[in-house]
Amino acid sequence: MSRRLSRKQLLIAGGAAGAAAAVGGGIVHESRSGAAPASAGASAQPPTVPFHGVHQAGILTPAQSDLRFAAFDFIGSGKEDLHDLLRAWTRAAATLTAGRSLAPPHEDPAKPPTDTGETAGLAPARLTLTFGLGPTLFEKVGLGSKRPPQLADIPHFPFDELDPDNSYGDLCVQACADDPQVAFHAVRALTRIGFGTVALRWIQSGFLSVPKDGDTKRNLMGFKDGTANPSTTDAAMMKSNVWANTGDGQDWMANGSYLVSRKIEIHIEVWDSSAESEQEGVFGRHKASGAPFGGTKEFDTVHISDIPAMAHIRRANPRQGEVTERERDPRAQFVPIQARLAAKDRLNEYIQHVSSAVWAVLPGVETHDGYLGQTLFET
Amino acid sequence: MSRRLSRKQLLIAGGAAGAAAAVGGGIVHESRSGAAPASAGASAQPPTVPFHGVHQAGILTPAQSDLRFAAFDFIGSGKEDLHDLLRAWTRAAATLTAGRSLAPPHEDPAKPPTDTGETAGLAPARLTLTFGLGPTLFEKVGLGSKRPPQLADIPHFPFDELDPDNSYGDLCVQACADDPQVAFHAVRALTRIGFGTVALRWIQSGFLSVPKDGDTKRNLMGFKDGTANPSTTDAAMMKSNVWANTGDGQDWMANGSYLVSRKIEIHIEVWDSSAESEQEGVFGRHKASGAPFGGTKEFDTVHISDIPAMAHIRRANPRQGEVTERERDPRAQFVPIQARLAAKDRLNEYIQHVSSAVWAVLPGVETHDGYLGQTLFET
Repeated sequence: MSRRLSRKQLLIAGGAAGAAAAVGGGIVHESRSGAAPASAGASAQPPTVPFHGVHQAGILTPAQSDLRFAAFDFIGSGKEDLHDLLRAWTRAAATLTAGRSLAPPHEDPAKPPTDTGETAGLAPARLTLTFGLGPTLFEKVGLGSKRPPQLADIPHFPFDELDPDNSYGDLCVQACADDPQVAFHAVRALTRIGFGTVALRWIQSGFLSVPKDGDTKRNLMGFKDGTANPSTTDAAMMKSNVWANTGDGQDWMANGSYLVSRKIEIHIEVWDSSAESEQEGVFGRHKASGAPFGGTKEFDTVHISDIPAMAHIRRANPRQGEVTERERDPRAQFVPIQARLAAKDRLNEYIQHVSSAVWAVLPGVETHDGYLGQTLFET
Repeated sequence: MSRRLSRKQLLIAGGAAGAAAAVGGGIVHESRSGAAPASAGASAQPPTVPFHGVHQAGILTPAQSDLRFAAFDFIGSGKEDLHDLLRAWTRAAATLTAGRSLAPPHEDPAKPPTDTGETAGLAPARLTLTFGLGPTLFEKVGLGSKRPPQLADIPHFPFDELDPDNSYGDLCVQACADDPQVAFHAVRALTRIGFGTVALRWIQSGFLSVPKDGDTKRNLMGFKDGTANPSTTDAAMMKSNVWANTGDGQDWMANGSYLVSRKIEIHIEVWDSSAESEQEGVFGRHKASGAPFGGTKEFDTVHISDIPAMAHIRRANPRQGEVTERERDPRAQFVPIQARLAAKDRLNEYIQHVSSAVWAVLPGVETHDGYLGQTLFET
């Protein structure tokens, strides 16, 4: 089985809060530019993921088990502050993802420790740090003309009940690791480095559990999730669907991507009280096998005529031909699919969107003297 | 190195919320009756932990990496409802901790699935489920005369700012596993089984990361945490310090224990801005090595004369002789130690207690036809 582009593990967040569990943004739609799933357990993976590359890590990286996703407000005074922040974050991210302490060998004990210390002795845990810019940032730092057209505000959809304090933001960091303490430490370190320039706006933790056999993961509604996502090993598919290309509107974004983060509460008491046949009808797939209606195995071809008209996979499926599939542009992919889901997806009876944000995920840092956002400042 | 009784992994909870991270109740005091640390990585452990035994699992079990701790309000009508609940929870816990689905093989698709399904295909992940009763339960179910004297209300301490909605409770379940989805699923299943008899009051997630070399874990203040805790492999020590004994006041509690859960916010911005020498003075230990002042290695003997008078390990250390050390009785252990800490511990400048609860952890279920709380009902 090839690796498949996952719904964001962010969105498989595991915070149960009273009647509703905060989970599963990815449930509502198919592939986003985001972390990819592991096709086998984490133990088979190398201990570190390279920070440097054409693209940022944490997008096609086989997904780690833990996520801390942080959104920040920019409180600095302009472009120079942003530039300094991104340079400092670049240095820190290269060090942290290598599993090293931020502290120099012999620090003056009369000063606050450079590294907060809670990962001393821990494995690097495949930490990745992925950085993005929000739509509101560009005007704030006098770079309004550099805002990519793809980074359009996400419209309000029917049934959205967004909490503004837990939505939006000027910058984001996605920290993924196989150890929550490693991911937490990284967000804490970056927040601390940004003191005076950025302030933490919201943070979301999440988990992602990979079955023993490397099978497709299940969401908290109990269904396999991500079956129809494109394979991350198909470079041409990734280029046309995930990566920003030159000529897309802002060439400085080439090799970057776009990320829509949605936080969704599942009304699990209601869901858990519904019949298995009802649950399967909502998705258009069988719960145990993951097979689409009309099929017997998970990866059997979906025949639209076999799927109930308002079932999730039919409403989400671009094969209906109602949208052009261009995942590298949220305006052409997330927005129309989500609009169709908000209008008619039966899953809406069981879920509530409570947070939304869209991010321009920066191009990768290719060299050791490069830095995050370099093309934004220098081209 | 022998295994050491840990501060509750509950209390190394990792939810950063704005300025303060919710963490580290155990930071404030030494050993509690709670989950014990792993002396090596989780991968060295067998895949399941036996549910049946003289004591409940999850107390001396080498600590798993994830915790979901749930507190419930009892909303049933009396003793019979509690009895039925505990029998049903016993059956479910034996199944879940064995890594099995709650669902029978061929369920009627016209009914809600018995198992919510999100752990299908996942490893058992050493799930343990540990059950406790709160002080308020006994009168509610007409068993006021059975309330153990050790299960006294925890007094209000100076600087406590408790959130009542996230404190107290009539029953608790501690779910620990090496996979958050497995722990989450268990709490969800037990909540669902209790529908109409109990309602979820609060839930707390937590993580616990074990260093590569099996060394003592570090808390989110960056210090090794649990160095002075007693060894869990010392049965005599456990009998005198952890387990309720016959003759302690309520014989039905024999082989049970008591658990104090505290949720503490660390003011990490303040902590992170303080000098390393200040941080070390607060604990009375060196940050990198964990050695006490006056020593060079973590497990060096603590000489009280070397430790600043208001340092945490001096205020918490029963070797000062101000309290009788009887960990099987919170009145004799947690309360006086916490009172001393609340009065003078320098750590108070950096932390805030926001949740408190005390629980009678039920004796273990020894046989397959036994059930949780059997001695409460039948003796």
